[in-house]
Amino acid sequence: MKARVTVTLKNGVLDPQGKAIANALGSLGIEGVSDVRQGKFIEVELNETDPARARAALERMCKELLANPVIENYRYELGDA
Amino acid sequence: MKARVTVTLKNGVLDPQGKAIANALGSLGIEGVSDVRQGKFIEVELNETDPARARAALERMCKELLANPVIENYRYELGDA
Repeated sequence: MKARVTVTLKNGVLDPQGKAIANALGSLGIEGVSDVRQGKFIEVELNETDPARARAALERMCKELLANPVIENYRYELGDA
Repeated sequence: MKARVTVTLKNGVLDPQGKAIANALGSLGIEGVSDVRQGKFIEVELNETDPARARAALERMCKELLANPVIENYRYELGDA
């Protein structure tokens, strides 16, 4: 079972990496970008077949390793593909 | 108009960061993870209101800055929220 985890910075948390991307886009002549925020995307392949247990494992992963709950939000979706 | 860009490594490209996450999950006692691949997630706020032109801008951003087309795939979705 495949899961897709997205980790994003909470609103109000400074994102220098996003600012750097926004500046670089301006330098490339791509106009009309008012804000950029960078996050992480993690694909996890689980041996688990039970969705409830897969969700419990994902919740632990996100809280203990993938995201810093102080400054980051996370969400995940389970899929078969 | 908000866009969400996801950049992932192509299949077959080594992902040491993903491997490190997989090992760390094992050390934390989270079993049943067979593979982890790490990618990037970028939220872009565009002033553009025309979807076709927003798509054209996103295509340029991905090709010229956000993704390395040699080793990475990208996809994006436009949304209002």
